[in-house]
Amino acid sequence: MARSPSGESVLSRAVRIFEAFDADTPAIGVSELARRTGLPIATTSRLVNELIGYGWLRRDADRRIRIGVRIWELVSRASPTLGLREMAMPFMQDLHAVIGNHVQLAVLQDSEVLYIERLSAPGSVRNLSRYAGRLPLHASAPGLVLLANGPLELQDSILTRPLDRFTPNTVTDPKALRAFLGEIRRTGIAFCPGHLDATTTSIAAPVRTVRGLVVAALATIVPNDDAARSIAPAVQATARGISRALGADR
Amino acid sequence: MARSPSGESVLSRAVRIFEAFDADTPAIGVSELARRTGLPIATTSRLVNELIGYGWLRRDADRRIRIGVRIWELVSRASPTLGLREMAMPFMQDLHAVIGNHVQLAVLQDSEVLYIERLSAPGSVRNLSRYAGRLPLHASAPGLVLLANGPLELQDSILTRPLDRFTPNTVTDPKALRAFLGEIRRTGIAFCPGHLDATTTSIAAPVRTVRGLVVAALATIVPNDDAARSIAPAVQATARGISRALGADR
Repeated sequence: MARSPSGESVLSRAVRIFEAFDADTPAIGVSELARRTGLPIATTSRLVNELIGYGWLRRDADRRIRIGVRIWELVSRASPTLGLREMAMPFMQDLHAVIGNHVQLAVLQDSEVLYIERLSAPGSVRNLSRYAGRLPLHASAPGLVLLANGPLELQDSILTRPLDRFTPNTVTDPKALRAFLGEIRRTGIAFCPGHLDATTTSIAAPVRTVRGLVVAALATIVPNDDAARSIAPAVQATARGISRALGADR
Repeated sequence: MARSPSGESVLSRAVRIFEAFDADTPAIGVSELARRTGLPIATTSRLVNELIGYGWLRRDADRRIRIGVRIWELVSRASPTLGLREMAMPFMQDLHAVIGNHVQLAVLQDSEVLYIERLSAPGSVRNLSRYAGRLPLHASAPGLVLLANGPLELQDSILTRPLDRFTPNTVTDPKALRAFLGEIRRTGIAFCPGHLDATTTSIAAPVRTVRGLVVAALATIVPNDDAARSIAPAVQATARGISRALGADR
């Protein structure tokens, strides 16, 4: 493997460059990119120019660097999440048409919940999650669904670490969280009024594939009021519809 | 830049590995990957293992290589197309609810039309385009919209090369195509009955941003019958709604 004098591979430097971008900073100047990656400016500039040549990065009108359309295309057309998204989308649209608030699909990634699809509308309630963004497992309804149905080692690991409290309703006590996970497995729904944001209720149900394996969580975010509970059956029914389309037995 | 004895950079080899995947082959064994990229098996295997370490590739249960969730996440959260897609999606959902057939958003990329978003439903007509897939500009309604409003050099380049004929209706004659592009600019709509597939009609309208710049095309695919023409005003009105949300003056 080709390596710099510091022993770091060229690929790992390219990875660091891509890791520097996020939803809040989709465009970065070369010197700022060097600062964020910890790479020398000359190295950053050379790597950026090569990646621009492949269409993996691009330089915008303000000479800032952005993710290129070519890498989006390469990754999206063979996307690890594409099959699941395409199967789920018609069901998500139906639910969105009925409840008129955010409808989201999320998967487990690196002990966090990763949002892989989202339908929103103007006037929907505040939503702290983002497309291709992450949230902690214990504080969001889809995260709790994925944790409740996830590997035991993951549950043990989450239950033995200090958990961030976002609102007074966030479940952070290990004993209470363990009981809540059991309830989510038993009822097939995670109902989280004000767990992450005091003004909203997050509701999620498991999406299953063959042999009942949970591969995703379908979630919605509605106002934190008395009507929220009435949304749960629609979320559950829709998650079952997606599961059946994915080949789940029940 | 670190280079192999052949003078090719490590990055360009990684790029070739990613280029080997597409919608039809989202999973590839290492020897097949070596064959497709033209790289030695040992080199392929070493690069693949390093990329798996970064989460940019992954090895599935059958030991085949797939695109990793981490690179999807990195590219999607700062996606070059995300702002456009998020702005357009509510309008696309409205149009989809009304016409019940494919609704798509496409941009110009490397002299082809690249589909960046798509809503479909079970029972929709056959659709030769794919999410993150491409089609030739001259044979699809969104491609013709983008070509008609694209750079003159691009039009000249397309009009002087031999163009594939997909059906008897595909416009391949340079003079006829030039006239058709003028009509599309004048009317603000591309209406293409059976141009790519004899059984379907593709209809598209331009999506504009500030100063009237065309940044995308909104398209639908409906059955190739007498009712198709009646869909055009809805496509135009929806494209104008997206344009207004993007800050276009008209």
